[in-house]
Amino acid sequence: MSDELNTLSATEIATGVAAGTFTAEEVTMACLDHIAGREDVVGAWEFVDPELALAQARVVDAAPEKGVMAGVPVGVKDIIDTHDMPTGMGSPIYDGHRPPADASCVAQMRAAGAVILGKTVTCEFAGLTPRKTANPHDPARTPGGSSSGSAAAVADHMLPVAFGTQTGGSVLRPSSYCGIIGYKPSFDTFSLTGVYPAAESLDTLGLHARKLEDIELASSALLMRPHALVPDSQRPPVVGLCKTTMWDAAQPESREAVENAAAAMKAAGAQVRDFELPEEFDWLGELRGIINGRERAVVMADEWARNRDGLSDQLQKTIQDGLDTDHRDYVDAMYLMETCRARTTQAFEGCDVLLTPAVDGEAPVGLDETGSPRFQALWTMLHTPTITLPTHTGPNGLPIGIQLVAPYRADRSLMAISRWTLEACA
Amino acid sequence: MSDELNTLSATEIATGVAAGTFTAEEVTMACLDHIAGREDVVGAWEFVDPELALAQARVVDAAPEKGVMAGVPVGVKDIIDTHDMPTGMGSPIYDGHRPPADASCVAQMRAAGAVILGKTVTCEFAGLTPRKTANPHDPARTPGGSSSGSAAAVADHMLPVAFGTQTGGSVLRPSSYCGIIGYKPSFDTFSLTGVYPAAESLDTLGLHARKLEDIELASSALLMRPHALVPDSQRPPVVGLCKTTMWDAAQPESREAVENAAAAMKAAGAQVRDFELPEEFDWLGELRGIINGRERAVVMADEWARNRDGLSDQLQKTIQDGLDTDHRDYVDAMYLMETCRARTTQAFEGCDVLLTPAVDGEAPVGLDETGSPRFQALWTMLHTPTITLPTHTGPNGLPIGIQLVAPYRADRSLMAISRWTLEACA
Repeated sequence: MSDELNTLSATEIATGVAAGTFTAEEVTMACLDHIAGREDVVGAWEFVDPELALAQARVVDAAPEKGVMAGVPVGVKDIIDTHDMPTGMGSPIYDGHRPPADASCVAQMRAAGAVILGKTVTCEFAGLTPRKTANPHDPARTPGGSSSGSAAAVADHMLPVAFGTQTGGSVLRPSSYCGIIGYKPSFDTFSLTGVYPAAESLDTLGLHARKLEDIELASSALLMRPHALVPDSQRPPVVGLCKTTMWDAAQPESREAVENAAAAMKAAGAQVRDFELPEEFDWLGELRGIINGRERAVVMADEWARNRDGLSDQLQKTIQDGLDTDHRDYVDAMYLMETCRARTTQAFEGCDVLLTPAVDGEAPVGLDETGSPRFQALWTMLHTPTITLPTHTGPNGLPIGIQLVAPYRADRSLMAISRWTLEACA
Repeated sequence: MSDELNTLSATEIATGVAAGTFTAEEVTMACLDHIAGREDVVGAWEFVDPELALAQARVVDAAPEKGVMAGVPVGVKDIIDTHDMPTGMGSPIYDGHRPPADASCVAQMRAAGAVILGKTVTCEFAGLTPRKTANPHDPARTPGGSSSGSAAAVADHMLPVAFGTQTGGSVLRPSSYCGIIGYKPSFDTFSLTGVYPAAESLDTLGLHARKLEDIELASSALLMRPHALVPDSQRPPVVGLCKTTMWDAAQPESREAVENAAAAMKAAGAQVRDFELPEEFDWLGELRGIINGRERAVVMADEWARNRDGLSDQLQKTIQDGLDTDHRDYVDAMYLMETCRARTTQAFEGCDVLLTPAVDGEAPVGLDETGSPRFQALWTMLHTPTITLPTHTGPNGLPIGIQLVAPYRADRSLMAISRWTLEACA
């Protein structure tokens, strides 16, 4: 049995461990075995200590009370602190760094009975410079980034759920490229305590999973709420088909995925309307470069001063651009971004959710770049909850996700509509 | 001369060091000498290494280019990371902890030429449990908290400027009690990278100084803008006299300070109107307890799991209350708080600034508590920029600050009006 436990969902694992159907140790062993067989190809992990993982699992098995995440192996992006594993930020500057405490999200997962399996590969400081991870569907292609290892590990059935972070598109892009679900909640939903920042006005902790119910389960652990799946919607959703101004530049497979999903949702009873964002939202892509560079320069002021040579050329350029940005341009960008945020809920114009491309197309060939964040970053700027669902494939048989976006704080509605959408597109 | 340099403003120091009038080393030595003579009474410091401070000063003196903070000694609240000094969080759990990097605000100050003089006393994890600091105006009284050491050190002329953080009232209250200026900018203005959190939706980095121009100077370093004081206002301000529902419970000296300031501002040409916040804002005080407790429990999930016995009884109770809070109550509280925030700018009703009590009265006698945060916390909840100005004294001759509050992101306007107000109240 052990060789199949790694394919179970987090929900199935927690249920099985609580019922005594199998043990957390068996689940952990199955995941470790699968990793041992596939890691050479996928390269999802910065750190896995099998004994440390199994010891956690035995503690869960011995505990009289089982938490909602009992025995569920969880992957942790390597910019997120762990007290018992190194946290390297994807950078030689932090090689072997040992934080004094767990990040809150890690401690919360442990408190809920999860097994912290190891640290997943991140691009350098959650930016654009990748390390070693390959797309499990085609190792010649990028898995996306910056949460590269988390998305690849979940997609490869190395474990059911993992943490990512998104400042531009770092949760949804790799999830879409790897064919799994990626969820970025409303800004300021999950704690960022112990998570290395990238741009403070944009950073959001998110989740990767193969099953939607696992996203809800992990959210319950992080929100410290009694776990229950959100009820089904009372009616099919009103869907805004939001092509954005980047539509024509996307690959045909991405446009076809969205149009096919729209047709399927309509066939299942949804109202689908063409939807255009207000004109001032067109500036958000450009503003993001200003804000991201400027805030990155602030976040990394210490590394810039004391360890500049330890930064990649690409990250040095981002920081230098940020330092060279006129402060007034940053203030103006923030003002426009905050104005757009304040108008976002109203801008939905009665739509429950927006349907929009998640990515430009299939994962690009090559491991030196992680693809474009532009279809994900717009919604990160707006602080809205957003999710990618693995509904489609492209001409090379690789996954193409669609993206659903809900108004700020409408995360529960987004979950219910996502469940409905997965059924409509099945 | 050395025995007077500690009384200079940051602006005077930076100007003098740049001009060669005196050296950064002389300034640092003067501050260290004053600390040596007064620390037994005030107890403002967790860590000062004179040689480390002087070595920084010599580097500044040797540098061909002088930054805007050249030679200015800066105090750093001991929840803010420093790569070369321990960061103890005011807790035995982090006793002797050495972070791998400077917090962004510290690195930015160093980049601007400041001398990081040492780590100032904080209440335990920036909460309510004080350590050893006394009010420099009367050592039998609290300096306020949680930025106790920063406010006391600046007030005692140990140095001109220091960092504080505010989640309830932790910058403005000790500033008011100690008779200095305390500034909490708009939420998400100064970086929190490397600052230990308390409640993530409320935490704000702020500044303590004796001179308003020093607040502007330090802000320029943190915002990476070319330094220039904001221009004077074109006209006297429209002032909303905001007594709040807590007015009658405040001490007479606090009410008198505000009414006297209102009269002085009116005499100087301001329009002063009675101002009432919309009714739903009355809930904010109660909501704060829910949000603060809940977010504190999340932030400290690791310490709760692994080091509970190292937490004070008071902090354990705050966390337990947070864990016991129904998740729906937290969600409701966040919704109401965010609704109030969205209505705040409109609620100003044409007022440029609100004038309101900063504190209940003079600093209370005793060092076991740090006074009430209620007059400060309302504005922290609303994310508005706020400042306390040391304009008045109470019946025991102790300082009573007034508080000015501006709409979100109107920090520059708040600076100009503060300058005008200091002149009007002089």
